[in-house]
Amino acid sequence: MTSPQWHLPEDRYFDPDPAQRHVARELYQSVADLPIVSPHGHVDPRLFADEDATFGTPTELLIIPDHYVFRMLYSQGIPLGDLGIPPLRLGEGLGVRVETDHRRIWQTFAENFYLFRGTPTGCWLAHELHVVFGIEEKLTGETAQAIYDQIAEKLASPEFRPRALFKRFNIEVLCTTDAATDPLRYHQAIRDSGWKADIRPTFRPDGVINLLTPGWRENIEALSAVSGITVHSYAAFIQALEERRAFFKRMGATATDQAAETAYTAELSPAEAEAIFRRALRGQATPDDARRFTAHTLMESARMSIEDGLVMQLHVGAVRNHNQLIFERFGPDKGGDIPQRSEFTHNLRPLLNKYGNDPRLTLIAFTLDEATYARELAPLAGHYPAVKLGPPWWFHDSLNGMKRYFEQVMETAGLYNTVGFNDDTRAFPSIPARHDLWRRASVNWLAGLVVRGVIDEDDAREMAHDMAYGLARRAYKFPQGRPGGA
Amino acid sequence: MTSPQWHLPEDRYFDPDPAQRHVARELYQSVADLPIVSPHGHVDPRLFADEDATFGTPTELLIIPDHYVFRMLYSQGIPLGDLGIPPLRLGEGLGVRVETDHRRIWQTFAENFYLFRGTPTGCWLAHELHVVFGIEEKLTGETAQAIYDQIAEKLASPEFRPRALFKRFNIEVLCTTDAATDPLRYHQAIRDSGWKADIRPTFRPDGVINLLTPGWRENIEALSAVSGITVHSYAAFIQALEERRAFFKRMGATATDQAAETAYTAELSPAEAEAIFRRALRGQATPDDARRFTAHTLMESARMSIEDGLVMQLHVGAVRNHNQLIFERFGPDKGGDIPQRSEFTHNLRPLLNKYGNDPRLTLIAFTLDEATYARELAPLAGHYPAVKLGPPWWFHDSLNGMKRYFEQVMETAGLYNTVGFNDDTRAFPSIPARHDLWRRASVNWLAGLVVRGVIDEDDAREMAHDMAYGLARRAYKFPQGRPGGA
Amino acid sequence: MTSPQWHLPEDRYFDPDPAQRHVARELYQSVADLPIVSPHGHVDPRLFADEDATFGTPTELLIIPDHYVFRMLYSQGIPLGDLGIPPLRLGEGLGVRVETDHRRIWQTFAENFYLFRGTPTGCWLAHELHVVFGIEEKLTGETAQAIYDQIAEKLASPEFRPRALFKRFNIEVLCTTDAATDPLRYHQAIRDSGWKADIRPTFRPDGVINLLTPGWRENIEALSAVSGITVHSYAAFIQALEERRAFFKRMGATATDQAAETAYTAELSPAEAEAIFRRALRGQATPDDARRFTAHTLMESARMSIEDGLVMQLHVGAVRNHNQLIFERFGPDKGGDIPQRSEFTHNLRPLLNKYGNDPRLTLIAFTLDEATYARELAPLAGHYPAVKLGPPWWFHDSLNGMKRYFEQVMETAGLYNTVGFNDDTRAFPSIPARHDLWRRASVNWLAGLVVRGVIDEDDAREMAHDMAYGLARRAYKFPQGRPGGA
Repeated sequence: MTSPQWHLPEDRYFDPDPAQRHVARELYQSVADLPIVSPHGHVDPRLFADEDATFGTPTELLIIPDHYVFRMLYSQGIPLGDLGIPPLRLGEGLGVRVETDHRRIWQTFAENFYLFRGTPTGCWLAHELHVVFGIEEKLTGETAQAIYDQIAEKLASPEFRPRALFKRFNIEVLCTTDAATDPLRYHQAIRDSGWKADIRPTFRPDGVINLLTPGWRENIEALSAVSGITVHSYAAFIQALEERRAFFKRMGATATDQAAETAYTAELSPAEAEAIFRRALRGQATPDDARRFTAHTLMESARMSIEDGLVMQLHVGAVRNHNQLIFERFGPDKGGDIPQRSEFTHNLRPLLNKYGNDPRLTLIAFTLDEATYARELAPLAGHYPAVKLGPPWWFHDSLNGMKRYFEQVMETAGLYNTVGFNDDTRAFPSIPARHDLWRRASVNWLAGLVVRGVIDEDDAREMAHDMAYGLARRAYKFPQGRPGGA
Repeated sequence: MTSPQWHLPEDRYFDPDPAQRHVARELYQSVADLPIVSPHGHVDPRLFADEDATFGTPTELLIIPDHYVFRMLYSQGIPLGDLGIPPLRLGEGLGVRVETDHRRIWQTFAENFYLFRGTPTGCWLAHELHVVFGIEEKLTGETAQAIYDQIAEKLASPEFRPRALFKRFNIEVLCTTDAATDPLRYHQAIRDSGWKADIRPTFRPDGVINLLTPGWRENIEALSAVSGITVHSYAAFIQALEERRAFFKRMGATATDQAAETAYTAELSPAEAEAIFRRALRGQATPDDARRFTAHTLMESARMSIEDGLVMQLHVGAVRNHNQLIFERFGPDKGGDIPQRSEFTHNLRPLLNKYGNDPRLTLIAFTLDEATYARELAPLAGHYPAVKLGPPWWFHDSLNGMKRYFEQVMETAGLYNTVGFNDDTRAFPSIPARHDLWRRASVNWLAGLVVRGVIDEDDAREMAHDMAYGLARRAYKFPQGRPGGA
Repeated sequence: MTSPQWHLPEDRYFDPDPAQRHVARELYQSVADLPIVSPHGHVDPRLFADEDATFGTPTELLIIPDHYVFRMLYSQGIPLGDLGIPPLRLGEGLGVRVETDHRRIWQTFAENFYLFRGTPTGCWLAHELHVVFGIEEKLTGETAQAIYDQIAEKLASPEFRPRALFKRFNIEVLCTTDAATDPLRYHQAIRDSGWKADIRPTFRPDGVINLLTPGWRENIEALSAVSGITVHSYAAFIQALEERRAFFKRMGATATDQAAETAYTAELSPAEAEAIFRRALRGQATPDDARRFTAHTLMESARMSIEDGLVMQLHVGAVRNHNQLIFERFGPDKGGDIPQRSEFTHNLRPLLNKYGNDPRLTLIAFTLDEATYARELAPLAGHYPAVKLGPPWWFHDSLNGMKRYFEQVMETAGLYNTVGFNDDTRAFPSIPARHDLWRRASVNWLAGLVVRGVIDEDDAREMAHDMAYGLARRAYKFPQGRPGGA
């Protein structure tokens, strides 16, 4: 029996019109082999700290850590335990049975692989399996075990260790996302190892800023410990944040990142900030305290960014852990985050009125509410010197998501108020797939403009290069050469 | 004088690109003749209770009962009375003159038929006139009377009686929508007649759940009468609902349906529920009572669905009877319902946290606010085992509405968390037109994925079959064979 | 050195598919040369009052007055002063340096012209430079001065005076926008000059209706002066508005226009209206007073429109002067207006329930929130006799904005509840570019319907003519011939 071959045509993701496809193909050839610039993501730096690190089994690589994958299987009634997702507390009568046979998990995955038809996860997996691992058959229940064998064999070879793939993927810069309290020891280990790779941390202070984060008090203690500043007051808190930013910067960081349920910004008086912070230290912060404190620290982050030059990223709109049961059993980041309606025009106004005209600030905004693209974010980015728009995020990191982004953002914001692509992934082997999809979607959009006479081919070539490479490098202020390696 | 011919090309609704059109045509041929599964609609079962029932005049068939048609004519200043729409109370000085000459109404319709250019109603009417009635000329003021004659002649023949068309349309299942208090006597009559057709009721309890429905008190009395349970308390109310659901299920129902202005869900304590219900019985329910009672009964409906297996449909977002004058003169369902902004992420959270992880529940959500497709509904359906997405509804049941649905829903939800098509119509002869339009739009979307290399043709064929037929049968749990005919 | 040529293909803005492009081209030929009907815009009538008026330098023509242009340059960090934008108060230590060398400003513009790639402003400028001024090279830093010379030379010639271009542009009607207190002396001068051109004022009462407008008290005094009615009470205010409307109507106006942050409408009792108005006269109006007064005057405007026949335009959703710093330094209309979320279904209900069934009222609604197109505005326009939809406005006056408008509005509203195109511009030489873009986008949309079999070519030709010409003339009730020239 012959199994169906992978369907991964050379011209994939381009519009079918021959004229447009011809232009798209030419533009693609000019950017396909550019190095990857990955300014925002969630790859674990530990993977690269030790040159002998490996990825584990195919199931450990592609299923267990990837909530994009298992949330779809879960939505069709497959229990997370059957997919090897570990519950927080085993054996406490929660009734979660965890499959430990990775071949069996893989079989379940393969039998349900049809669920990913037409999804971006399906596109990325096709690329990973075919291009990265050389699989030539379609993944089905029948081919599951043979394909498992092939991947496992590859993963056992030196060519498939993280550092080897980093090189093969032609990654020029990779930024991780790290808690404000992180000592960055894996980043230090990478540097100490003498391995020449541009891997940079990103300062993510959510765990100490969001007063209602589970474990906030412990995070503040960790902040004291790591910064050497006893955080017993709001003033000390700000001082500790500034110290950590300086440390991250010395370790190569060029950016910060904050996630917030809304984009609400508002300045507190020093006395109010202090009072709220002390209530929080006493475990008495209210939801409104937390909301106002986050709003205030966004203002403070902008001020610090103007002072230290770190690019400010703001990710708005996810209701985290919407599914209480899954959160309680399995913890965060298990596919149960759901977007909500967002608002930027009024919410960002206090911050922009104070700092938005300062070209030293780069505020990159991300949204999960596409209704804000043309209505709010493109007009804001197309006016304020400080504002730029991040690429389509999360659920919108897809062919159609990119198409909507190009069509709804670019006319008003202009390309040069956007920042290229973020892969935003913790799934390291999906990085080339994601950048390739962005590059293909970009050149296809540009080719559409060319064949419609909106731009000419010279412009399109420059724009394609910027979308694949230049915009990200410039927006995130990456220096030429090694981080900190002046 | 020769009149222009109908413009109804074989390849209609497909993208013009030859490669895409070629694939679309092949896929279409594989699904065009599949039986129609109609799991949600508003056809009057009385049409089928008597084998000699007829449709009346062309005007009675196509204009007077169809608010899609007359609201467009009304929007251009044509009084509803001129279109034969009967006011609630004649001769009370409301100044409504009602045209009774059906030929004259038809003439007005024909002269203004150009208003439907580019609209889905225009597409459906073209199909009905050309494919169902064999009209070969374009409908205009000049051709109006001749076409009236042709249709009237057809309608007088046995081949155009409802049961004959049901068979000709190749309808495999047709679900009606029926009040909780409906004794389902026409459904019973259909069964008693021995006619072999799979026509099923759907349990729609809005009239007894929405405490502010005009006539709510009478509906509760009817509920007591029909259930045999005196509904003098909240507890009795729930018991009566359960009794009615069981009755509907025995009569073949596989689903319920609720319409609500918002998706707000929240559980009341038994005491609160009882207190609100008793206020309502005394005619003292407030708008807030009604809002909270609806929110609570949505939770209860989910619980009952888990217990009795009936699929739960939820239609959210219409502001009914927005036009007060039209409502007062002509009653509900006269084209004056207008959508409003909707929210699901927070509103459905209480229900989903209680029941959303239970795979025995199927909650099919419908929206009139497309901004919720990619932002809320696709992520919810792509995570919770219980949630599925209904097809584009009402104003969005159109070529562009379907395109937006495919593009904004499928990447995140995945095809298999959707449920195929609903025609949702009270216009029986438009059923084939509506399903054909969906099938054409579906295969065109799939062909677009094929020529872009997102899926291969094997996948596309399976998906096309599911979109035309399989998804609806499975989501609505239709058994093989006759309803209740075990 | 040869510079790149302008890229302005004959078939620009049409879809690349050859079949669609063929139909689009044929339709375009049938409308390309129709006269321009411009029912809403902001051209200064002074330009036409004196037959010797000129446009000044290329920089004065194309950069300094056009916030579409300079806001994009500003967003990339170029100070407004460098672009010649005059601050409100010079030399008050605000640190604004104003460039007065128009060649230098032009150079900056040219060097940054790439910022407009893919934007509607880029499309309009290409048309203006190439078609209106005959420039054949691409605008870059290198070609800047030579192109400046060519334009300056043209502008110095009689063929490029405003009246000459008015004729060359084939403008059949041009409506300006004029404050309620405007004595319309330039309109009078145009009439007195004997020049045969149909230029009409539009009644814009925002400055006297919005109680929080800076200078509202002075505007009321001006209203008293110009109307001859001492506006010391709400009753006198209404009387004065009615007087001014009658005057505008005598001067050729067929329409009014109001801008509001929201579409909120609500009727006040006469006593409430009077009380609010008197608080405002005493300088004590609150934001809530202003909000309710605007809501009430929208109702009153509808009533007056029914009485005097003036078409009522309503522009909703801009947060004016979002950027406080820019507003304080440079004043309004400097690119710092940002849209916000809008709502029509509930907000317009009071007005529509009172006046929406009256076919004597034409209420043309404009939105900056595209989420309201399919959800609210198309259903409202597709039902209420009084409601029509304005074309895509401001940020959405673009190729993609039009595409979204066609796709999201037309199926539900129907073409005949829309009103053709508004250029809405203060940049006179961009008028042909904007109408041409609309005509191309329109015929391309229609061609898409033809090749998909939704409409036939006969329908498409009539629709194309209406979209380019007929709908605007009819919706705005332009008489045949000269204004007031009965």
